[in-house]
Amino acid sequence: MDTFAARGYNNASLAEIADRVGLTQAGVLHYFRSKALLLTSVLELRDRADIEQLGPDRPQGLEFLRHLVNTALRNAEREGIVRLYAVLSAESVTDDHPAQEYFRDRYDGLRAFVADALHEACDLPADRAGTTRDAANAIIAVMDGLQVQWLLSPDSVDMAASTDLVVTSLLATLAPERFGTASPH
Amino acid sequence: MDTFAARGYNNASLAEIADRVGLTQAGVLHYFRSKALLLTSVLELRDRADIEQLGPDRPQGLEFLRHLVNTALRNAEREGIVRLYAVLSAESVTDDHPAQEYFRDRYDGLRAFVADALHEACDLPADRAGTTRDAANAIIAVMDGLQVQWLLSPDSVDMAASTDLVVTSLLATLAPERFGTASPH
Repeated sequence: MDTFAARGYNNASLAEIADRVGLTQAGVLHYFRSKALLLTSVLELRDRADIEQLGPDRPQGLEFLRHLVNTALRNAEREGIVRLYAVLSAESVTDDHPAQEYFRDRYDGLRAFVADALHEACDLPADRAGTTRDAANAIIAVMDGLQVQWLLSPDSVDMAASTDLVVTSLLATLAPERFGTASPH
Repeated sequence: MDTFAARGYNNASLAEIADRVGLTQAGVLHYFRSKALLLTSVLELRDRADIEQLGPDRPQGLEFLRHLVNTALRNAEREGIVRLYAVLSAESVTDDHPAQEYFRDRYDGLRAFVADALHEACDLPADRAGTTRDAANAIIAVMDGLQVQWLLSPDSVDMAASTDLVVTSLLATLAPERFGTASPH
């Protein structure tokens, strides 16, 4: 994790990874077969840890949106993991990247989760599905984009405050009768 | 530009770049001295093109915010440039990356521009500077984050619609008396 976060996938060397865990390169490849498989294993391990931390009853609706703001707050305490995802998700759009499918599927799943949560929180009619989708994509995007800014200039970026502001503002736009008074004053 | 966008900086080879422009590697290094200097020159050239396209009278306030939504719309027609910035901005947070300073300065400048535009559009008192800053950071973040999602799944992401929704919603939250009726219904 640390090596992929510090160097990106392409620039990470198996020699360095083997060195850090006290194995030979052949030893690492005995367990993971290739650098590409090691990378996707690391990402899946991280996801499993997050899912386990969430517990058996995944929060729904408004509670899930609050969980996202809380994730942004916790992320400010775990620079290594934030860097891992920020670097690899963007690097995954380069040609033939081994984590491209992983991130495409991950975003597909996240977009659907967040859109469902918005739909449940706002109780919107079916003809607002397009706006709900645009809002869901924006919430995931703002969390990702803040991470890069924060990694470069931690004192200039409050990831949780900006995420909260966007979620609150989008809820007020989508369902003004329900959330319109939720002003941050 | 194409090579850095397709491979990222670390994985881009000078040999490939030289080949694509019909020079030897020594020929490329005659003009740019190092791969790192070639990268920062490419980024500065792109910025200069964008600034020239903007004209001598940079839009201010609400007009600048509308310009950002318009940029998101135009970006959906220029995948190569979007990929260049998405890959390199995230890669710049890796150890000793040659464009780290470039992106840190670029985001500092962008954050200040967008915060000024929000301040002017909303005419907020000084004690709202923190919220204005959080909103400015979020607008830049949402544009960046949407790019990665769009590059992976162009049919699932409408960059301009999501950016517009966030800008509209943040304006309504910051200055409800001025923008509170700007509902997307």
